[in-house]
Amino acid sequence: MAETTDVVVAGGGVIGLAAAWETAGRGLSVRVVDPAPGHGAAWVAAGMLAPVTESTFGEEALAGLFVAAADRWPGFASRLQDATGSDTGFRTCGSVAVALDASDRAAIDQLLDHQLRLGLEASRLSASECRALVPALSPAVRGGALMPGDHQVDNRALVLALIEGCAGAGVKLTSDRVVSVSLDRDGAAAGVVTESGELFQAGTVVLAAGVGTPQIGGLPEGVVPPVRPVKGHTLRLRAEAGREAFPHTVRGLVHGRHCYLVSRADGTVVIGATSEERGYDTRVQAGAVHSLLDDARLLLPAVDEWELLECIAGLRPGSPDNAPFVGPTSVARLVVATGHYRNGFLLAPITAEAIAEHLTGGEIPAPLAAFRADRRVEAARSERPS
Amino acid sequence: MAETTDVVVAGGGVIGLAAAWETAGRGLSVRVVDPAPGHGAAWVAAGMLAPVTESTFGEEALAGLFVAAADRWPGFASRLQDATGSDTGFRTCGSVAVALDASDRAAIDQLLDHQLRLGLEASRLSASECRALVPALSPAVRGGALMPGDHQVDNRALVLALIEGCAGAGVKLTSDRVVSVSLDRDGAAAGVVTESGELFQAGTVVLAAGVGTPQIGGLPEGVVPPVRPVKGHTLRLRAEAGREAFPHTVRGLVHGRHCYLVSRADGTVVIGATSEERGYDTRVQAGAVHSLLDDARLLLPAVDEWELLECIAGLRPGSPDNAPFVGPTSVARLVVATGHYRNGFLLAPITAEAIAEHLTGGEIPAPLAAFRADRRVEAARSERPS
Repeated sequence: MAETTDVVVAGGGVIGLAAAWETAGRGLSVRVVDPAPGHGAAWVAAGMLAPVTESTFGEEALAGLFVAAADRWPGFASRLQDATGSDTGFRTCGSVAVALDASDRAAIDQLLDHQLRLGLEASRLSASECRALVPALSPAVRGGALMPGDHQVDNRALVLALIEGCAGAGVKLTSDRVVSVSLDRDGAAAGVVTESGELFQAGTVVLAAGVGTPQIGGLPEGVVPPVRPVKGHTLRLRAEAGREAFPHTVRGLVHGRHCYLVSRADGTVVIGATSEERGYDTRVQAGAVHSLLDDARLLLPAVDEWELLECIAGLRPGSPDNAPFVGPTSVARLVVATGHYRNGFLLAPITAEAIAEHLTGGEIPAPLAAFRADRRVEAARSERPS
Repeated sequence: MAETTDVVVAGGGVIGLAAAWETAGRGLSVRVVDPAPGHGAAWVAAGMLAPVTESTFGEEALAGLFVAAADRWPGFASRLQDATGSDTGFRTCGSVAVALDASDRAAIDQLLDHQLRLGLEASRLSASECRALVPALSPAVRGGALMPGDHQVDNRALVLALIEGCAGAGVKLTSDRVVSVSLDRDGAAAGVVTESGELFQAGTVVLAAGVGTPQIGGLPEGVVPPVRPVKGHTLRLRAEAGREAFPHTVRGLVHGRHCYLVSRADGTVVIGATSEERGYDTRVQAGAVHSLLDDARLLLPAVDEWELLECIAGLRPGSPDNAPFVGPTSVARLVVATGHYRNGFLLAPITAEAIAEHLTGGEIPAPLAAFRADRRVEAARSERPS
């Protein structure tokens, strides 16, 4: 006999888990269905929370969302830590954007002007100011900018804490893949069917399966928003055991290519990230690893000496306008939260709040109102550099 | 009570396992002690059997040994395959040495002249002849040489087949580390003591622990030959599933740096190898991975598209004159087989034959006679490019 909960969430990435945890915290019974919770794109991510450096030309509404999302992070992290006793690695580290050549410098200056016009907190840095903040930087660095409002979280510690928090809040975690939504005779969502053939009935179905969302069947055409896989590689290195390698996130522009290095308190460093459009392929490619190492060592020559722990690739759910899809759909009792692209971690707390509010009769937070799941978007791709 | 065998071998790398298998095949009881048989330097190697391309200036006696060693390979591989039913991946593929710039070309030409003077089989190739042999080569390749006598074996398949062959021949495999040799009251070797405190008595002790050999205690000074760890990184990639990526081993000289690519029948490719003197450190370093990818993609641009399966590092047992130490020592009933440096796989069959002959009252094969374990060698390092 099929089991019933108030809510079933398809997808246990950072969005699905955060939404499940928040929703369970408001008294609803919740099930999350995912073949490997936390081990998709969330596992590959670097955990940058970058409201300022991710704010770029032509995406002003998104910049507002990013700032509102970042504001929720300290509270979200401390509530999760209180609930679980687990450290999520959330911390205020700021980003230092650095330029390697004159064109890179001009590009950072232009973006800085734009960010300042949006009222974001950022300031120009000379080359020596960059090196004062991150002494390991290459002497070739031409200058850059400081974004003190950018933070970081340990993406893996966070999803593990969310799994723990979900378990503590009574969320049922099912290791399986949702293959379709089951509709009742009125066409409303009534549950999900999994790869192993189980039906999980629920009062509301939440689709939060990242790039897997469009592969979920059973729905009329056009209901699931158009997300596409944007492959990203990250590398994990160990600079020094038990000691932070450098104090700020480094976001480099290296002869026009983007490369970031996120330094964790335990001495590991995450280098990211490529952006490739190659369908659902998550194989690690030699060329991507080479390119990340190539750029990272130009920014911080010490990278050569560091231990390479892991090369991994994942798929970001890209959307046509680089913005997420969050909220109800044209199918009754079907809610969507996907399309978070490069900003899944930054947007997880506000998205989770939106889903939990919506499911308990509340309003979706204003900064997310422009990014409804049923909005019309251009189907054409709008690519951005990584 | 301590167990006794005719022979105890300290070290289950390609040398120790091959020696144990050959010795057991002649009727002696043998034990091999190794914490992880086959998983040291033998696991990291690429399995090139390169009598010609490894023959260089000033090492004429070694060149003779390499050719004699290569001659034993077809028989050794087919006996092992007959005994176990396992394919070792031994095959005749030849090497194509290729030059990326004019200096690289000159260096290959010089070495080719030297190899021809030694009577080795090799021939000069124009750039277009190189590309005819390996169509995936970069258009930048300047020419090179063909060494049809170079072969390959799948290093991992081979050590697994040797473990199987040893088991089939009654060799006892003990997962432990030898920490010292036990001597009897006459100062002759009588067994080994392991990390977990066990004593394995034996009629003869064979030290074949690669770079671990000098760490084995209990012996008078100067008995164990002076081998040192020479770190090497290799990468494993998948070019295409189930199909050989290119037909010959590619040995590139890339702006003075050496880089080789070994193509297996199943579509995997091994890229090697760095040479670093860093003590007993086997961590994978980002700079080494970058440098191997950097050189490999200059030789074969398609490398960028290949899946990167594994980055790994191991320690070759380097010797002062780049030659192995094989045979009896000044301690009675103590035999050594180490110092095989870059040529452990090539030299394994002739070394195993030498050990088995010596242990059964025979003679060490003539080509190995110059490389006795108790010969005097300069203690100074004699470094070679990788």
